[in-house]
Amino acid sequence: MEFSSTLLENAVNEFARLPGIGKKTALRLVLHLLKQDTAMVQHFGETIIKMRDEIKFCIRCHNVSDQEMCSICRNPMRKQEMICVVENIRDVIAIESTQQYSGLYHVLGGIISPLDGIGPDQLNIETLITRITTENTQELIFALNPTIQGDTTIYYIQKKLPRADIRVTTIARGIAFGGELEYADEMTLARSLQNRVPVGNFIT
Amino acid sequence: MEFSSTLLENAVNEFARLPGIGKKTALRLVLHLLKQDTAMVQHFGETIIKMRDEIKFCIRCHNVSDQEMCSICRNPMRKQEMICVVENIRDVIAIESTQQYSGLYHVLGGIISPLDGIGPDQLNIETLITRITTENTQELIFALNPTIQGDTTIYYIQKKLPRADIRVTTIARGIAFGGELEYADEMTLARSLQNRVPVGNFIT
Repeated sequence: MEFSSTLLENAVNEFARLPGIGKKTALRLVLHLLKQDTAMVQHFGETIIKMRDEIKFCIRCHNVSDQEMCSICRNPMRKQEMICVVENIRDVIAIESTQQYSGLYHVLGGIISPLDGIGPDQLNIETLITRITTENTQELIFALNPTIQGDTTIYYIQKKLPRADIRVTTIARGIAFGGELEYADEMTLARSLQNRVPVGNFIT
Repeated sequence: MEFSSTLLENAVNEFARLPGIGKKTALRLVLHLLKQDTAMVQHFGETIIKMRDEIKFCIRCHNVSDQEMCSICRNPMRKQEMICVVENIRDVIAIESTQQYSGLYHVLGGIISPLDGIGPDQLNIETLITRITTENTQELIFALNPTIQGDTTIYYIQKKLPRADIRVTTIARGIAFGGELEYADEMTLARSLQNRVPVGNFIT
């Protein structure tokens, strides 16, 4: 692409560095911003810079936060004895959006994946063990993606647990709501048969 | 979507305002930026703000420019007697990318479209007429989209031309390169028959 303006070209290149945004989309975004007020574009840029500069990670659960401890950990209404272990921040947002969970979280920052060179030491597992030791944790819910790596991570953490009196669960794996049985893979179908629930349980 | 951080939420909202970017994509972009260096994100924001603050529009052809006159208008190697009339900046970039055109441009900033409330007065038509009067223009090439509005705009400008000795052309309309004849609409096919070219002309 040939540009008659270096300013335009630089802006397009910056946008094109973002994941999933090619040169053509970047140009469309930049030309859109070009049509906006200077003040609006200034606000756009400053909000992004401020976000990166000032965002913190919760010292307790490693979730993104505006303060030392995130709003979920600071909320006394949340069940302090439940910890939901997730891979990343996006999972926290997804679970929070269901408005069905009222416990705490622990963000691992990844899952154990030897092929990608990610071992337990790179993840926030040590801090999880410390939390379970010092906090009054009663249940640990693993909400990891149903993959070999996810299962390995669950297995590893379970072996490391400092107390035996904790209930360890994982989110149900089965046929998705609205999903078609015939298109489900065997693994999912097999597990959903194994973990079948009494009919009364889901008619609530 | 529920966020545990206002900083994150604000950044996501800013991205989600851009055309074609929903909340989920915005979140993906923001989380990507969160993983980058502070300096890199600072550079991203500042480049966008700088672009909007400092960009100018060429006083001659209305193309985007870093200076009073754009790099195409300032280039003495370009054929000064040819003006290609386009709807917007994106069209200039598209034509420049072909590296086949060495004349000048004139960006109308839109096309005549009474239904959208866009009349000739909102477009850069007056300055085009002035250019033709004062400059040594020999050929005017219309590279507008082949729509009723495009044709109306061509007709309007042609009627306004101050001199009769200018060659007025429009880019060829026909079957796209690699396009299938049977899927072409009748209008395109009819025009491509009307404007048929001797075979020698395109075997170059």
